[in-house]
Amino acid sequence: MLQLLSENQCFGGVHRRYGHSSSVLNCAMELAVFLPPQALCGRPVPALYWLSGLTCTDQTFMQKAGALRLASEMGLALVAPDTSPRGDTVPTDPDGHWDFGVGAGFYLNATAAPWSAHYRMHDYVVQELPELLEAELPLCPWRGISGHSMGGHGALVCAMRNPGRYRSISAFAPIAHPSISPWGEKAFRHYLGPDRASWREWDACELIATARERLPLLVDQGTADDFLEAQLRPQALERAAAAAGHPLTLRLQEGYDHSYFFIQSFIDDHLRHHARELLREPG
Amino acid sequence: MLQLLSENQCFGGVHRRYGHSSSVLNCAMELAVFLPPQALCGRPVPALYWLSGLTCTDQTFMQKAGALRLASEMGLALVAPDTSPRGDTVPTDPDGHWDFGVGAGFYLNATAAPWSAHYRMHDYVVQELPELLEAELPLCPWRGISGHSMGGHGALVCAMRNPGRYRSISAFAPIAHPSISPWGEKAFRHYLGPDRASWREWDACELIATARERLPLLVDQGTADDFLEAQLRPQALERAAAAAGHPLTLRLQEGYDHSYFFIQSFIDDHLRHHARELLREPG
Repeated sequence: MLQLLSENQCFGGVHRRYGHSSSVLNCAMELAVFLPPQALCGRPVPALYWLSGLTCTDQTFMQKAGALRLASEMGLALVAPDTSPRGDTVPTDPDGHWDFGVGAGFYLNATAAPWSAHYRMHDYVVQELPELLEAELPLCPWRGISGHSMGGHGALVCAMRNPGRYRSISAFAPIAHPSISPWGEKAFRHYLGPDRASWREWDACELIATARERLPLLVDQGTADDFLEAQLRPQALERAAAAAGHPLTLRLQEGYDHSYFFIQSFIDDHLRHHARELLREPG
Repeated sequence: MLQLLSENQCFGGVHRRYGHSSSVLNCAMELAVFLPPQALCGRPVPALYWLSGLTCTDQTFMQKAGALRLASEMGLALVAPDTSPRGDTVPTDPDGHWDFGVGAGFYLNATAAPWSAHYRMHDYVVQELPELLEAELPLCPWRGISGHSMGGHGALVCAMRNPGRYRSISAFAPIAHPSISPWGEKAFRHYLGPDRASWREWDACELIATARERLPLLVDQGTADDFLEAQLRPQALERAAAAAGHPLTLRLQEGYDHSYFFIQSFIDDHLRHHARELLREPG
């Protein structure tokens, strides 16, 4: 059951924040949804799921990406979940660092204690959340998925692990190969345990080799991104996609950094990429 | 002297935050500027000054208004000052309320102690800041001014008190008649003292009667704005404009509230309103 927390009219549609109790995450969660005008007339519309990066919440994308204008025009819903489970019962980084724990769920299903009791963001994003939203809101089951940084990688993994569930994928500055990125290694070591073999199931550069679906990937990466070499490594994704014969458009955007100023500059291209699959007429 | 604090490429232009020492405000200040691609080629461009509302900073508009896309396309610079003086030496609301003091400078020149030592946002916004920016950045002296709530009113007052200084004005949900608004009364009583006669010089509904310039005003106001009746009172501005014969387009936007979701929905209309005056070819 969704509980409405707030509502703002925007571009003729409506931005809403909801709270609900997540059985997958075993805690209360909040999320943001943008419903375009077309949905307010009762016609179910497709939805683009956006997975945000480290330290973000459900609000970051809705407030900073500048996506609602074109989404409203095109008739596309936007869904922004939070970046991790939250609450007093949810464990987090014991040293209080921002790159692990609360705000840093990495969109996987943790298998190691104590994280496995709550940190199951993959199942939450892929199953529980769409089921809930499509039951209660005018959303049809045509879904796209995108995201930024940790969430850009999350989008790739959610789509590759669940063929048939998404019709379109894209990413901004994904942590392309987390098994060899300091952020990813820290997260995987805690959430999944030290056995690196188990990490392969949650790393896009590994999953792409055996993906059962070849949805074309659109990936934008700024060349002035401070995290480019140490954390993001888009070349690893490029190599893995080439080896697998997976269609990838990797655009290196000269001079852009890791911020939402980068994202807002290219979000319209991504919305159009998703709309080509999500909004095309049947037949 | 501007000191560059940060820089983000955005829509082919650049968003920058600067710090500088303000002699008018007697403290260090920070501000944000968006320079469109046209300015980066060295051609001076006009600038739209944006005055934010209570509790905001120089970052609110740049991150949440969705204005940079069209500003970049049109070749318009955006300037967002902070909402008050700040720092350890700057007095603020003794009870810690957010509607007065730091974050709530009301864009006037305080005359009462202890506020008059720092709270001179009018002279800062109208004189010191443009002089500094036009000396150091590729900005020409063609200026528009707009803002939201406290800043929407600030924009009206800055323009009406300084004929010839701005070529275009607009406002979102301005505190139209602060002398009779609880927010405005509290601020004016502290900043200007108890003599209500002195308040008239800082109230748009009073200034409009004797304005020496009749620049057309574009004002958007959401009908679902929680502050509409108690604080904003656009009808007072409408009556004052009619009595003065001042051109005003007041648009009541059905269902919109006081948030940046409202602002982003109509910011493009305002940018075009300003561009008609700021970007027209001479002759």
